[in-house]
Amino acid sequence: MSAPCPLCDKLSRLRELSDNEIVWRFPHSVALLGPWQYHLGYCVLVSRTHATEIHQLPLADRSAFLEEMVLLTSAIDAAFKPRKMNCELLGNQVPHLHWHLFPRRADDPDTLKAVWLAFDRAEQDEQEKQRLQTASLPQMEITARLRSSLRQLHAPKGME
Amino acid sequence: MSAPCPLCDKLSRLRELSDNEIVWRFPHSVALLGPWQYHLGYCVLVSRTHATEIHQLPLADRSAFLEEMVLLTSAIDAAFKPRKMNCELLGNQVPHLHWHLFPRRADDPDTLKAVWLAFDRAEQDEQEKQRLQTASLPQMEITARLRSSLRQLHAPKGME
Repeated sequence: MSAPCPLCDKLSRLRELSDNEIVWRFPHSVALLGPWQYHLGYCVLVSRTHATEIHQLPLADRSAFLEEMVLLTSAIDAAFKPRKMNCELLGNQVPHLHWHLFPRRADDPDTLKAVWLAFDRAEQDEQEKQRLQTASLPQMEITARLRSSLRQLHAPKGME
Repeated sequence: MSAPCPLCDKLSRLRELSDNEIVWRFPHSVALLGPWQYHLGYCVLVSRTHATEIHQLPLADRSAFLEEMVLLTSAIDAAFKPRKMNCELLGNQVPHLHWHLFPRRADDPDTLKAVWLAFDRAEQDEQEKQRLQTASLPQMEITARLRSSLRQLHAPKGME
């Protein structure tokens, strides 16, 4: 038996998560607040369908999933006014489709580079990890602003 | 007068590029072979429309641009059978919509991490830079395989 998928497992236990962690339930994906809230508003958008690569989803499903990504990016951008959005579909560690949506701050010393350099430093440096996981707002406020922004964009809702 | 956009400039001078560098002319974007060909088949997909964020494109345009990204990802995947595709829309240095599409090799020592860590090392280390820019196939062969793969997927063609 192969190892269970950590993201399929997470989606099956959404009821156990804190309400502040679940930003939005889309028809084809679920938006979760990400751990690196130095990037205020960072979300992880997890496909409800298990697939490794975007082209493995049928056209209608991937179009809907991609449009949910665009809506969430737009909502993060509107809520927190970053210098730039970074949208990344990687899956090197967990091969279940999920977007990392990072709002990049104008005052980030690493602003011209990908976020992963700082996260790599944080693996060896507890202080750096703390810095990158600490938000300037309470989690509840971040989630509330994102939801308000999504409502203004008329983002579609899906069941759990 | 603000600085000209380097990608708008590049798109306006496609005729000056080597034919091997231009992988495919889509209706909404142009696929260029990327410089880090250790990741065999790595492409940069540049939007023909200048915009900073994906949600700034009108719905029909962004759907077409996103579907071109999916087609190219699928073609790279079919041509070079990587362990995983990485699809990244960043723009921290050049804020004109462009996808980095990286096929991740199973034998990459950094396979579980984002590609940017190695590229950052390469800034200080000429040998590492050489390693990451060297392909195991001639450029002409890489481009030919990608085009063949795109034709099989019936990828749409656009004018220059």
